[in-house]
Amino acid sequence: MRRITMLGTGLIGMFYTMALHGHRSRDRVHVAYSRSGERAKAFAEQWRIPRHTTDLNDAICDPETDTVVIGLPNHLHEEAVLAVAKAGKAVLCTKPLGRNAAEALRMLEAVERAGVFHGYLEDLCYTPKTLKALEAVRHGAVGKVLWVRSRETHPGPHSDWFWNRELSGGGAIVDLGCHCIEIARNFIGKDIRPVEVMCWADTQVHPIDAEDHAVGLVRYENGAIGQFEVSWAFRGGMDLRDEVAGTDGTIWLNHWLRTGMEMYTAVGETGYVAEKAEGTTGWLFPVGDEPAALGYIEMFTDVLDAIEEKREPRETFYDGYVVNAIIDAAYNSVASRRWEPVTLPVWRGREGVENVAASRDYDPQHALIKEERMSDGSTKLILRHKATGRIVQRVV
Amino acid sequence: MRRITMLGTGLIGMFYTMALHGHRSRDRVHVAYSRSGERAKAFAEQWRIPRHTTDLNDAICDPETDTVVIGLPNHLHEEAVLAVAKAGKAVLCTKPLGRNAAEALRMLEAVERAGVFHGYLEDLCYTPKTLKALEAVRHGAVGKVLWVRSRETHPGPHSDWFWNRELSGGGAIVDLGCHCIEIARNFIGKDIRPVEVMCWADTQVHPIDAEDHAVGLVRYENGAIGQFEVSWAFRGGMDLRDEVAGTDGTIWLNHWLRTGMEMYTAVGETGYVAEKAEGTTGWLFPVGDEPAALGYIEMFTDVLDAIEEKREPRETFYDGYVVNAIIDAAYNSVASRRWEPVTLPVWRGREGVENVAASRDYDPQHALIKEERMSDGSTKLILRHKATGRIVQRVV
Amino acid sequence: MRRITMLGTGLIGMFYTMALHGHRSRDRVHVAYSRSGERAKAFAEQWRIPRHTTDLNDAICDPETDTVVIGLPNHLHEEAVLAVAKAGKAVLCTKPLGRNAAEALRMLEAVERAGVFHGYLEDLCYTPKTLKALEAVRHGAVGKVLWVRSRETHPGPHSDWFWNRELSGGGAIVDLGCHCIEIARNFIGKDIRPVEVMCWADTQVHPIDAEDHAVGLVRYENGAIGQFEVSWAFRGGMDLRDEVAGTDGTIWLNHWLRTGMEMYTAVGETGYVAEKAEGTTGWLFPVGDEPAALGYIEMFTDVLDAIEEKREPRETFYDGYVVNAIIDAAYNSVASRRWEPVTLPVWRGREGVENVAASRDYDPQHALIKEERMSDGSTKLILRHKATGRIVQRVV
Amino acid sequence: MRRITMLGTGLIGMFYTMALHGHRSRDRVHVAYSRSGERAKAFAEQWRIPRHTTDLNDAICDPETDTVVIGLPNHLHEEAVLAVAKAGKAVLCTKPLGRNAAEALRMLEAVERAGVFHGYLEDLCYTPKTLKALEAVRHGAVGKVLWVRSRETHPGPHSDWFWNRELSGGGAIVDLGCHCIEIARNFIGKDIRPVEVMCWADTQVHPIDAEDHAVGLVRYENGAIGQFEVSWAFRGGMDLRDEVAGTDGTIWLNHWLRTGMEMYTAVGETGYVAEKAEGTTGWLFPVGDEPAALGYIEMFTDVLDAIEEKREPRETFYDGYVVNAIIDAAYNSVASRRWEPVTLPVWRGREGVENVAASRDYDPQHALIKEERMSDGSTKLILRHKATGRIVQRVV
Repeated sequence: MRRITMLGTGLIGMFYTMALHGHRSRDRVHVAYSRSGERAKAFAEQWRIPRHTTDLNDAICDPETDTVVIGLPNHLHEEAVLAVAKAGKAVLCTKPLGRNAAEALRMLEAVERAGVFHGYLEDLCYTPKTLKALEAVRHGAVGKVLWVRSRETHPGPHSDWFWNRELSGGGAIVDLGCHCIEIARNFIGKDIRPVEVMCWADTQVHPIDAEDHAVGLVRYENGAIGQFEVSWAFRGGMDLRDEVAGTDGTIWLNHWLRTGMEMYTAVGETGYVAEKAEGTTGWLFPVGDEPAALGYIEMFTDVLDAIEEKREPRETFYDGYVVNAIIDAAYNSVASRRWEPVTLPVWRGREGVENVAASRDYDPQHALIKEERMSDGSTKLILRHKATGRIVQRVV
Repeated sequence: MRRITMLGTGLIGMFYTMALHGHRSRDRVHVAYSRSGERAKAFAEQWRIPRHTTDLNDAICDPETDTVVIGLPNHLHEEAVLAVAKAGKAVLCTKPLGRNAAEALRMLEAVERAGVFHGYLEDLCYTPKTLKALEAVRHGAVGKVLWVRSRETHPGPHSDWFWNRELSGGGAIVDLGCHCIEIARNFIGKDIRPVEVMCWADTQVHPIDAEDHAVGLVRYENGAIGQFEVSWAFRGGMDLRDEVAGTDGTIWLNHWLRTGMEMYTAVGETGYVAEKAEGTTGWLFPVGDEPAALGYIEMFTDVLDAIEEKREPRETFYDGYVVNAIIDAAYNSVASRRWEPVTLPVWRGREGVENVAASRDYDPQHALIKEERMSDGSTKLILRHKATGRIVQRVV
Repeated sequence: MRRITMLGTGLIGMFYTMALHGHRSRDRVHVAYSRSGERAKAFAEQWRIPRHTTDLNDAICDPETDTVVIGLPNHLHEEAVLAVAKAGKAVLCTKPLGRNAAEALRMLEAVERAGVFHGYLEDLCYTPKTLKALEAVRHGAVGKVLWVRSRETHPGPHSDWFWNRELSGGGAIVDLGCHCIEIARNFIGKDIRPVEVMCWADTQVHPIDAEDHAVGLVRYENGAIGQFEVSWAFRGGMDLRDEVAGTDGTIWLNHWLRTGMEMYTAVGETGYVAEKAEGTTGWLFPVGDEPAALGYIEMFTDVLDAIEEKREPRETFYDGYVVNAIIDAAYNSVASRRWEPVTLPVWRGREGVENVAASRDYDPQHALIKEERMSDGSTKLILRHKATGRIVQRVV
Repeated sequence: MRRITMLGTGLIGMFYTMALHGHRSRDRVHVAYSRSGERAKAFAEQWRIPRHTTDLNDAICDPETDTVVIGLPNHLHEEAVLAVAKAGKAVLCTKPLGRNAAEALRMLEAVERAGVFHGYLEDLCYTPKTLKALEAVRHGAVGKVLWVRSRETHPGPHSDWFWNRELSGGGAIVDLGCHCIEIARNFIGKDIRPVEVMCWADTQVHPIDAEDHAVGLVRYENGAIGQFEVSWAFRGGMDLRDEVAGTDGTIWLNHWLRTGMEMYTAVGETGYVAEKAEGTTGWLFPVGDEPAALGYIEMFTDVLDAIEEKREPRETFYDGYVVNAIIDAAYNSVASRRWEPVTLPVWRGREGVENVAASRDYDPQHALIKEERMSDGSTKLILRHKATGRIVQRVV
């Protein structure tokens, strides 16, 4: 059983607390911290949390808690992490870890120096569908992963600080791209080095300085590509999809708008429809169990089990730092308008890995381009003569 | 925290234990019972259950446990329920409650006489999608419910006793129809009396005495219809869908084959795909978190919370008994080839409810049949003159 | 090239004319008939039809046309068919053929006596998806067909006469069930005799005498079941789906609401969305090419080719008459509340066909109930001892 | 009625002829040309074409035909176009127009100099779903188009010449990207200048010199982005999807793998499943009417009508040339690893268009970032003070 300090009482603090207290959980949030006393009190009442405070250090050092969850705006992560490290407690930090890789690396170094447990709360890498898909990939069901598209788009975040580049570290790339990048890393292999990034970003519909729409490609050392698509300008709800292309298979995940629950209402749903849903009449697409669909349940199970089993969780501050480094490269690419290297002063994965490129020999002289069964029962082969490069067609 | 005796170590015992032990649960199965000592031992090892036994009474009366879960074949429910009632513990019984209403009513009376907590483990009424849909119905989002289709079909159950009508009480209707019937009751209103049933059933592809395919209509006192479709002859996996038609809206739920996870594999998935999945190559449709998708997580949350909060769970033995009575009427209808009444010696719902039929007046003389906006901006009305019954068309 | 007289200028006349004139067609409607001169004129102008008239006989006997399409309300079919037969032209009649089987049989006899070509314009048996699915069934891809569900529901028809039981012959069963019944016949086999019908029907939301919601089961001589679900009370657009269950496979067709075209609009679509669409904002599901999706294109291709090739089209007046006979039995069943026989004074299909029931022997002593590959690589068999009926489980 | 010379008898020639002869068409292919006499003869027999020849000029100059359709490999387009222009006939050329923009521009100039009708056979811009979606966009249903993703991926083309960069002009970008680029142009506006391209491409699984996988971004003058995703390495069939994001709406089109037709077969479909389908057992996703779904029917309707109506078709050689110029820029970007300009020596669209960027004022001092209805009925506003840039949150 973990006794938890929750820092932050916004949307993310609420989702985290729902997940931590949910079902028949043995864990409890024991202290809630908010910068506003009123919000702290209301939150504590709503979730039956014994203590609440507006004093960050008081919350972190509460003698009754052993684990601190950071659900604060991005610009407050570092300060909080350093304080928890100092307090010697397990620290779980929401995404993105830092506003940039330098900040993230300082946090990583702080928790490692202090020797405290650290978990990176990257929920979308823990959705039940993602975990099952990752298992299939590990079984070889799709062969080698060549390309991953991860997309998160919606009409924009709820709180003011997201829109302020100083506080958040950027726009939709920082807010949403951090998910997409880490999802792709999971499918491609976390030990494969991300080499370089090409990114387009623009501010299309909001009066802000940061980007509200971006598409980026991350090239990994083995030739695989992680593609992220993020937007605060999407209409129709929250589009949360992943696509994986492998040499032997394909995976498509839809986490939000098309999950097998569809509703038409002429009169309107007066209750809650789904996070970021637009509208309450006509065809609606609610999500059964949102904390589960977003990965919160499996995430806290892994992280809190890991504390008790004295092992690493699936996602650590090291992962958060790698993601920040990729985001930094993305912003560099937006500015330079070319591929930009991912700078990783600390890299703990493999080096010099093989390319995913795979081609099959047909016979000693020929490589096989394509083999196809024809409607008349024959087989058509397209071959490349290895010495001359000539491409020939044969029916056998 | 509940300490549980698990009776039965088959597929259902496994799903229940996965759900009970899952995530960060504070509950634990403490004793496992199986008729086979070997299976009891293996099960206890797999799920780290401290004790296992082949002695039913010993399992039920274990002083360390306060709650008994019955996951046994249908013909053993009554004996087990009576023994738990005698032991004075909370009793949770899998579906169907009895092989018929008489058996179910005896179980209901036994637990009520003994004053023990009783929960009916009707998981499919607890899936996250179903719970969210029921909430929308309660909010009036679909108006009055007119018709519910609930469908469960797959290529047939795993264990021999299901196929033996003596032991199971019937075929696909008893095995799967019990789910569909109770799902429809939940949407239509559990306080609305099921009046009569019309059912077709046949043994189409298996060499058994019981039906392997059936379609039934249950008419409720308010005119609403619950339609169940069950089969052990379906090909392609497990088809688990519900459809609700209301005066003001529609709900479609797909719990299994199309939930937003799609995978193509040319080489095959060597791991587990999904319950009742057929095949491991080509396009596959795994389910992210099966115990969650099937409702087990929410079900045990409700039932175990209810024990602690000293309230009724959503589904009780009374509900199990009503379902059995509807199934009895379905079998009567298969035999008589006509609508057959549902016999309910005990009925605790409402009587004399209003019909769902709803028609709207247009003016004092006319009822409104249809109103439609035309492409030229005019409105076309179809009206019925109330005195003469004449139907007229008007463009306004 | 066919020169056509179009009788009727309502929604169906418009769809037919769109299909007949569509793409690079060589056929042309030459005369349009409507009971209203104004509508006849407007229709002729819209579709560039040379002649229009309010005189039925004049339209039918126009010397320039060789083919007459009947798109009139149901109560006018017989009179029109008799007139065309007398005129000796090819006659194509919209669905349902008659208001009842007696009427339909008189029409069949009239055209056969006159020796004129006759086509039954049952468009939904001609949708590209249906034709492809029927081909797959013919190839044996789903084995023997056990059950077909065909569903057509929407918020109600556009014209007044549909709502008047005298003129239309009934309610949603006559209007929509005729489609569903014939779709099931196509999948099950048109040469298999429909034996009996069980049907529920009710008037749930409209102030009319006819039913606005019905579910029926048609049992065929070989044990297969055709299930029709029809409603004028559905909300959310037009639900047009078919499901086929065979011994070796499954087919699911969705013709309207989920065909791969999805649109969200916050501001609204000011143009046309789709037939029977409700609402113009939020998530909408338009259909790319409606006449094609509804089968009109393939239907007229088959029928007009058949005239030129002097062969029967896929759907004839005989099929229309069989459908009417099934509908009559459905209404009888609604009244008697039991299975009612389908009365077919003329039957041209097979007699005494084998039951679809199929069971497989495992060895001379045992029939195979189920065979399942287990996760440990073994195979689990469930067998029935043929002499004793005992059911046993074996792992091999 | 058009009388057509068909140049080429491969897969595309077959699809074109199916479409031209299909349904009740008044058009006919009159001469078939193939480089192989055997294939010419077989093709002519299969499609009942009166003449066949292996002499290109003879085919083009046949006095019985007025229209020439070019369905030849890419390296033969220019020669054929010049010959048809010289013959003074209407010329319809398959996609891509040229292997590069220089070739395409020469073809455009040739047909314009000769004054002959020219159509660019870009079928995927003519699918019924695309046409309907374009109409919705024109109505303003999605507001201003910000981003279009068009994706075409499959396991690789059927004929040898595609794989030979000399003959085809490139790899998957030339083969498939030409579709995706022109689809995006249609949604964004053909009069909006494509300014620059950033593209990743790689040869991941085939022993060829050209790319078998690529992702590119095309930036238009108004800030809109057209994203193309192409691959010859995709597994699972043919993935053909478009997504459109606008300021006020979203459109999703799925043309192939999920169109509302789903089939499971345990025994296998012995007939044809769908173009590029992999496998014939398990879950299959056939397409009802392939020539229609791929746009061939609507394409020839538009093009042949345009000849008769003496107007331009939707897609002309000019469009083919613009597409080739964008592809050239994509290859430049792959080489230079940065955004590369689209070079258009001839540009007939608008210049100096406004950016799609749209932001809304809340009051004279503030721009509106976000407005959201809260669950307590209040409205939360996120505003930016225009003078200071400060972002504030207000509840009203």
